[in-house]
Amino acid sequence: MPTTTWNRHHVLSLADFTAAEYDTVLQTAASFQEVLSRRTKKVPTLQGQVVANLFFEPSTRTRSSFELAAKRLSADTLNFAAATSSMTKGETILDTAKTYLAMGTDIMVVRHREAGVPNAIAQEMDRLGVRVSVLNAGDGQHEHPSQALLDLFTICSLIDPNHPRLELLKGKKIAIVGDILHSRVARSNIWSFIASGAELHLAAPPTLLPKLFAEYILEESGEEDAGTQGHWDAENEEDTGTKGHNNVVGKNENLSASPHPPLSASSSQLFLHWQLEPALQDADFVMTLRLQKERMTAHLLPSLREYHQLFGITTTKLQLCKPNVKVLHPGPVNRGVEISSELMDDPEFSLIQSQVTSGVAVRMALLYLLGSGKA
Amino acid sequence: MPTTTWNRHHVLSLADFTAAEYDTVLQTAASFQEVLSRRTKKVPTLQGQVVANLFFEPSTRTRSSFELAAKRLSADTLNFAAATSSMTKGETILDTAKTYLAMGTDIMVVRHREAGVPNAIAQEMDRLGVRVSVLNAGDGQHEHPSQALLDLFTICSLIDPNHPRLELLKGKKIAIVGDILHSRVARSNIWSFIASGAELHLAAPPTLLPKLFAEYILEESGEEDAGTQGHWDAENEEDTGTKGHNNVVGKNENLSASPHPPLSASSSQLFLHWQLEPALQDADFVMTLRLQKERMTAHLLPSLREYHQLFGITTTKLQLCKPNVKVLHPGPVNRGVEISSELMDDPEFSLIQSQVTSGVAVRMALLYLLGSGKA
Amino acid sequence: MPTTTWNRHHVLSLADFTAAEYDTVLQTAASFQEVLSRRTKKVPTLQGQVVANLFFEPSTRTRSSFELAAKRLSADTLNFAAATSSMTKGETILDTAKTYLAMGTDIMVVRHREAGVPNAIAQEMDRLGVRVSVLNAGDGQHEHPSQALLDLFTICSLIDPNHPRLELLKGKKIAIVGDILHSRVARSNIWSFIASGAELHLAAPPTLLPKLFAEYILEESGEEDAGTQGHWDAENEEDTGTKGHNNVVGKNENLSASPHPPLSASSSQLFLHWQLEPALQDADFVMTLRLQKERMTAHLLPSLREYHQLFGITTTKLQLCKPNVKVLHPGPVNRGVEISSELMDDPEFSLIQSQVTSGVAVRMALLYLLGSGKA
Repeated sequence: MPTTTWNRHHVLSLADFTAAEYDTVLQTAASFQEVLSRRTKKVPTLQGQVVANLFFEPSTRTRSSFELAAKRLSADTLNFAAATSSMTKGETILDTAKTYLAMGTDIMVVRHREAGVPNAIAQEMDRLGVRVSVLNAGDGQHEHPSQALLDLFTICSLIDPNHPRLELLKGKKIAIVGDILHSRVARSNIWSFIASGAELHLAAPPTLLPKLFAEYILEESGEEDAGTQGHWDAENEEDTGTKGHNNVVGKNENLSASPHPPLSASSSQLFLHWQLEPALQDADFVMTLRLQKERMTAHLLPSLREYHQLFGITTTKLQLCKPNVKVLHPGPVNRGVEISSELMDDPEFSLIQSQVTSGVAVRMALLYLLGSGKA
Repeated sequence: MPTTTWNRHHVLSLADFTAAEYDTVLQTAASFQEVLSRRTKKVPTLQGQVVANLFFEPSTRTRSSFELAAKRLSADTLNFAAATSSMTKGETILDTAKTYLAMGTDIMVVRHREAGVPNAIAQEMDRLGVRVSVLNAGDGQHEHPSQALLDLFTICSLIDPNHPRLELLKGKKIAIVGDILHSRVARSNIWSFIASGAELHLAAPPTLLPKLFAEYILEESGEEDAGTQGHWDAENEEDTGTKGHNNVVGKNENLSASPHPPLSASSSQLFLHWQLEPALQDADFVMTLRLQKERMTAHLLPSLREYHQLFGITTTKLQLCKPNVKVLHPGPVNRGVEISSELMDDPEFSLIQSQVTSGVAVRMALLYLLGSGKA
Repeated sequence: MPTTTWNRHHVLSLADFTAAEYDTVLQTAASFQEVLSRRTKKVPTLQGQVVANLFFEPSTRTRSSFELAAKRLSADTLNFAAATSSMTKGETILDTAKTYLAMGTDIMVVRHREAGVPNAIAQEMDRLGVRVSVLNAGDGQHEHPSQALLDLFTICSLIDPNHPRLELLKGKKIAIVGDILHSRVARSNIWSFIASGAELHLAAPPTLLPKLFAEYILEESGEEDAGTQGHWDAENEEDTGTKGHNNVVGKNENLSASPHPPLSASSSQLFLHWQLEPALQDADFVMTLRLQKERMTAHLLPSLREYHQLFGITTTKLQLCKPNVKVLHPGPVNRGVEISSELMDDPEFSLIQSQVTSGVAVRMALLYLLGSGKA
């Protein structure tokens, strides 16, 4: 493992991650990726430590990834699933967490459908003065930092497998396409990609990427000249001369729903589009997001067919991108909706399997960094 | 580990536990508590043995505690959850147990909503002449011995951390407050606290602690002079001169619901109250029980608010107790019902977190004592 | 472990198992049975490997058996249960399998209510050129090979514990009784018992063993003279002179429901009956199948009572068999339906517990044979 100066007790959000922290995670994950290629894929690093997966919101994929990461570090794991738990008996979430603390848990991996729950648990642990670490495995529409870190690792490892690092993305064009408004994955991705110096393009229908979103994430970024810092591309405003780029307006509207803190993006890094094409144009990486089908019933979308036509990623549409463009998706995929079935399975373009593999290495890295100083 | 003369094959009830057995569990748990404070919290004691958690009634807290205890002894664990099991296919409970026996299970940890199920499984194992041990993890309204043992260990360890033993409780006043009638935890606690020589005070509304209960547990105790052995304190009978203490009456009523065997309590040890105050007066320890909210719909209680006012434990009410009184609760807690939220979180008084920690050590001790002679 | 020439990547069906493969499984299982009798029941064979139990159809019994087998080989296990999975989110089964592949799974144990799912996953793994093995743990009404192999091992070990092998069953009379039409266990059993050279008698009511079934499994067996290859015993046709044996008729009917390939049975090996008695007559082994109670609602059966009377196995009916006859059942058992409660618990006749024990050894053998060449 690389020697690092990691001082973080919890991983709750990427909003305040430093470049050094990103690089530490990337380097540590690269070391574990190497371990995973050996005959014996286990290391004794966390032997005797307990990793509790507190999944108040059910998830098989993410829970299995964390569980396997913990086991490969030789930790013992406890799985808490909300369905069969005493949550139904009226116990509070903090009480549940404190119960697992008292049992001897060293690291809590927390998923909850409400934003802020992992944060609240971490604060409680700190208040109690205990050394337990909390790792956010997805909270509401807030953040999913381990997913964004594995995305980052997947891309950086592709560019330089031996020495993945943040600066490799500097100047790369990355498009995030889909239901950005409701995506905790996208929120975490935005922090890491902006930190890398990449040029980030968000594309979605207006109902899934309202102007308010742009305004909110750019708010207090220190650059009040919206014309240089935020870029907006709206279907009916293409006569502005700066095709696809529009100023952020409506600053006095209120965005009460989002727990997202303001972003310090440099002026030329973040672009928002209500059309797919300008986001794809010359992109190096395209990340398409899972579409929650319940958005349909909420009348935020006309039909899955129309969504796929407008925002679904296909081999044909990729022709707008750089020739060696790669496509990512956090999974699980709705084939034929956010991405064509053919493209998803095309190893020339798809990094989707690679993301899952990276996930184990990145989660081993996070558990290692949080846990190695403990016992 | 201390050398002991432990001969018990199953832990089903504390009704026939000897003082030597209590002390063996306490001493063994103290040894494991020390193991749990080391850097590496695992011991190889039960390597290769299989602990099957047969939870016919779902439970996250107790199951996690047993699972962690087993893993820290290096046993392999199997989790059986009724919901996804072949119970729905009509297999009998004994057949399920025999299937886990045939797979090679060494210790079965059994929870069931019907009283007597762990007992029936243990009898079947004995009948078959196999060396499998059964540990009752809660059966109906009967017993929950590991919970009572961890309560005992929590209190005794507080008094003498290095040498917790039963006699430390001699003469201490312990109050158990709440739904005693329906509580398997209370039933197990009564055995251990009486065995310790403590003075035990039970307090609850009449619907949750009927006279019949007192009569039943005192029946055949060998001391028929009720005036000296059982003490009853009823709201409308305070003019008896012996405030708070009343004779047990109505011996000819039938208590068909309870599987509880008679108790051999000495004359001055067990007191029952329909009011909280006499139980709290000068108490050393107060154990408050979880209130099952379904008792409300069964019209056994007027309202949660009124219950809390009359029987909920608060910092104010604790002023009746000894100055260094401690409060216990088996969890999960209904904050603001059986205990005030403020008190629950007050480390000066609350032993609730300490109970959970003790739980792992005590369960390691029980698994060790049952399993070490096996393989 | 015996040195073998095992070349199989997947275990999906017994239809194409060779005698050498059967004997390799039997011998390897015998070695592990010996390991399981030692003090330390674990071997480090699969350390660092990951066995994922992908149970799209819930099962506690079979999943526990595979999980324990994997743990005793020191593999890490991941449990996937459909109920809490992203299957509800619309992900395809192959995508789920590929996710577990990408996480680093070495062996997938797959159960699904649809026939062919394990096969489809195996084909996908082969198409991708990866070394992952797939083990069918029951697919629809198709096959359940590990169950049939443990049945085979149970019987052969009884005859020669030190050297269980296929040829031990040559000439033995084995009766399979019950809902053969819908049983994946029976389908796998038919392959292995026929391969062994045993004389196999299937007995069931006409609705659960239609002539079409016989026709189908005998089709293309290379022996078109039905009078010598297939034998049929129908209730209303006992005046044929060959009591209990009847020719297969109705070849032009279509059997669209069954995924079962044709069987190469020699002419004197397979007999079908609509009555129990001729199947039991002089039998060495009787295997009775679980009756799915939903067959009743589908009007395939008159009543459980009548079924038990006609096809339920009892001590009395066993008097038709060889004196040392043994009874098997794949479990879970409906006591008093397919087998009498008394007989099930009679150690003189019942091999049911022995089957469960064999299950762990046989599954260790399969995981070992599939996994040992990997890492």
